[in-house]
Amino acid sequence: RCFICGNMLQKIINLTVRDVRFPTSLEQHGSDAMHTDPDYSAVYVVLDTESGLKGFGLTFTLGKGTEIVVCAVQALAGLIVGTSLQDIVSNFRGFYRLLTSDGQMRWLGPEKGVIHLATAAVLNAVWDLWARAEGKDPKQIISCIDFRYITDVLTEEEALDILVKAKGGKQQREEEMLSQGYPAYTTSCAWLGYSDQQLKQLCTDALQNGWTRFKVKVGADLEDDIRRCRLIRQMIGADNTLMIDANQRWDVADAISWVTRLAEVKPLWIEEPTSPDDILGHAAISKVKDCHNRVMFKQFLQASALQFVQIDSCRLGSVNENLAVLLMAHKFKVPVCPHAGGVGLCELVQHLILFDYICVSADLSGRMCEYVDHLHEHFASPVVIRNARYMPPKDPGYSCEMLESSVRRHEYPNGDVWKLPIQK
Amino acid sequence: RCFICGNMLQKIINLTVRDVRFPTSLEQHGSDAMHTDPDYSAVYVVLDTESGLKGFGLTFTLGKGTEIVVCAVQALAGLIVGTSLQDIVSNFRGFYRLLTSDGQMRWLGPEKGVIHLATAAVLNAVWDLWARAEGKDPKQIISCIDFRYITDVLTEEEALDILVKAKGGKQQREEEMLSQGYPAYTTSCAWLGYSDQQLKQLCTDALQNGWTRFKVKVGADLEDDIRRCRLIRQMIGADNTLMIDANQRWDVADAISWVTRLAEVKPLWIEEPTSPDDILGHAAISKVKDCHNRVMFKQFLQASALQFVQIDSCRLGSVNENLAVLLMAHKFKVPVCPHAGGVGLCELVQHLILFDYICVSADLSGRMCEYVDHLHEHFASPVVIRNARYMPPKDPGYSCEMLESSVRRHEYPNGDVWKLPIQK
Repeated sequence: RCFICGNMLQKIINLTVRDVRFPTSLEQHGSDAMHTDPDYSAVYVVLDTESGLKGFGLTFTLGKGTEIVVCAVQALAGLIVGTSLQDIVSNFRGFYRLLTSDGQMRWLGPEKGVIHLATAAVLNAVWDLWARAEGKDPKQIISCIDFRYITDVLTEEEALDILVKAKGGKQQREEEMLSQGYPAYTTSCAWLGYSDQQLKQLCTDALQNGWTRFKVKVGADLEDDIRRCRLIRQMIGADNTLMIDANQRWDVADAISWVTRLAEVKPLWIEEPTSPDDILGHAAISKVKDCHNRVMFKQFLQASALQFVQIDSCRLGSVNENLAVLLMAHKFKVPVCPHAGGVGLCELVQHLILFDYICVSADLSGRMCEYVDHLHEHFASPVVIRNARYMPPKDPGYSCEMLESSVRRHEYPNGDVWKLPIQK
Repeated sequence: RCFICGNMLQKIINLTVRDVRFPTSLEQHGSDAMHTDPDYSAVYVVLDTESGLKGFGLTFTLGKGTEIVVCAVQALAGLIVGTSLQDIVSNFRGFYRLLTSDGQMRWLGPEKGVIHLATAAVLNAVWDLWARAEGKDPKQIISCIDFRYITDVLTEEEALDILVKAKGGKQQREEEMLSQGYPAYTTSCAWLGYSDQQLKQLCTDALQNGWTRFKVKVGADLEDDIRRCRLIRQMIGADNTLMIDANQRWDVADAISWVTRLAEVKPLWIEEPTSPDDILGHAAISKVKDCHNRVMFKQFLQASALQFVQIDSCRLGSVNENLAVLLMAHKFKVPVCPHAGGVGLCELVQHLILFDYICVSADLSGRMCEYVDHLHEHFASPVVIRNARYMPPKDPGYSCEMLESSVRRHEYPNGDVWKLPIQK
């Protein structure tokens, strides 16, 4: 503890940011109706402190344009280098607002797109540093949240009240998670670019490994979707769970007619049927959505435009903004089922969903966390899945640290992977 | 005409992008409740064609972070260099979608923030090139619009119908605009950082120059706002028009109570009372908004969350996306009052509002276009204001071209303006 307290006073003396890309498009991993050839990538941030302690953070991207987010992180770096962890967390709401509401840079968002992805990468590194310190009490947690624009549905007092109430049974839930883990579902079996043969093989393997919940990418071709969904429903049987994800492919009317046809395979949810900005469109279609900031989540909840909240550790403004969303979801009694996969999203989001169960919702009904089985080998503390459940991470920090050898090899454009002509 | 047709076949052989910043924060020009010290800036794009013909485009930013948008333009450049104007406009909807829906880069938006500002800069340059060619008929105009995500409120057929119907009286409206110009309002008199003495002087001058509509920045301090608004109402009298703009400063409840207090000065509208993402919040407060894409505008219209549509030539995806918004506004019978000012926004948006009057709405009631009186001297064809009205531009193109001497002097960080230590 003294080690940590001493470290909190040490200045952050440097921020390094690197463009790390994995050539996943080569095998169609991650392919969906809108993103047909993603190269899963990370904007990877390392904070150095005077004492030598490091904080690791990242945000997730799909390849091209990652350098734009790198440029945005560099623009934010001046706001963090020279401060200390103590400076930041003693007024974390203020620091959050410094990054998201700079008088000149907020024009580039505000709180959306490239600049918000960069904010997430930087703040994830701060949380990684801070996560090594002692436990946080409800007041400290509340002080991390910027309530600007959401006080009409959630005030600071209500939020504190939720956390204080959830203290009951906390230790029991911690023990439960440590022994049994948090329920997960898999998206690894049914990327859009996979052949039927691949789908079958992956489904067979997953069933053998204890998976009971499966997500299928749809949206490019209706007849093809029907065939693929039927195949998977047949493989997994009537009692297991199937979800579908259109990745923003449809207009509102398309979504309604398409989903009507796909109803025969009994999907639990339809993910991202249309534009991520279309709250009223989602209310008309009504399903599930991962939004770009707390203000969008607020309205999706107000408009009953989603039945499951999909938080994302790297699209929202880090833990700070996700805390606001978890608390609003609890208030609206909507289950949280996080988005994961990508690069490191599973590693990060497991912390958030465990926090949600232990400290906010105290409820597992209708809840599960997405899991995708790739790229974990590049992390210093990869997620542990046992019997289709996330086992709580035990290493200190926010699980963002990548292996230096992986980073070096995949750095764009000069890492070995990107220099070899066969790769791209 | 032959000259132009020949040029349309010429390849675009190069795209240059430059970071141009004006140190406007020194005198508090442009200051408001959220942007207290903006340095008005432009990401300035030049397209070179084989024949030597050039297209000029830009988007507007506030200083810091402009380099991020420059980086994003560079990422998009590969999609346009090597094509010809003919390639682009023969399938302009497809080209728009190529820029906004690239399988890897759309993750960074989609259609919002940095990547959408960059798209605007690039497409504004394309329109500048194309604007030099012959007139466009309704079908060509429709073919520029990406209807994805808005077909639930506006189909291609409806849009074409609106344009065809508006052909009646077109020539007469053209003549009217050429002789009288389009009504404008001024924001130059009442930036938040100006002293009362400055407000008075600027109001006096503006009244003498024929201005009858005035916008006042508010939102930092209620008592201060009341004093300033009373002062301006007193200066301009009961018959002139006053609007207020809070630039996203308030939460929903704040906005309602604040606006209730300011009602005594009888503002025509309240601009950006809260988060730009909060459709339902705006519906509760109900006023006026400039959105980041057509999907947001669609919902603001569906939810009756605005009474005036403020389009922006540089935040939306250029003319293409603004066309969609003008057509939806017409369908919902909401007047369009464009946002302007910044760097070049007046130069660009005058084309859009003249198009709206002549080819879409055929209506001037309740309509006016914002005007801010600075930085026009840097443009090759600056706007012409006569008796508080925009006089139609007569030079070919989309009025985006800046003087090379201005660009060179203000280029960041190596132009003379930014090298001198006194400036910043």
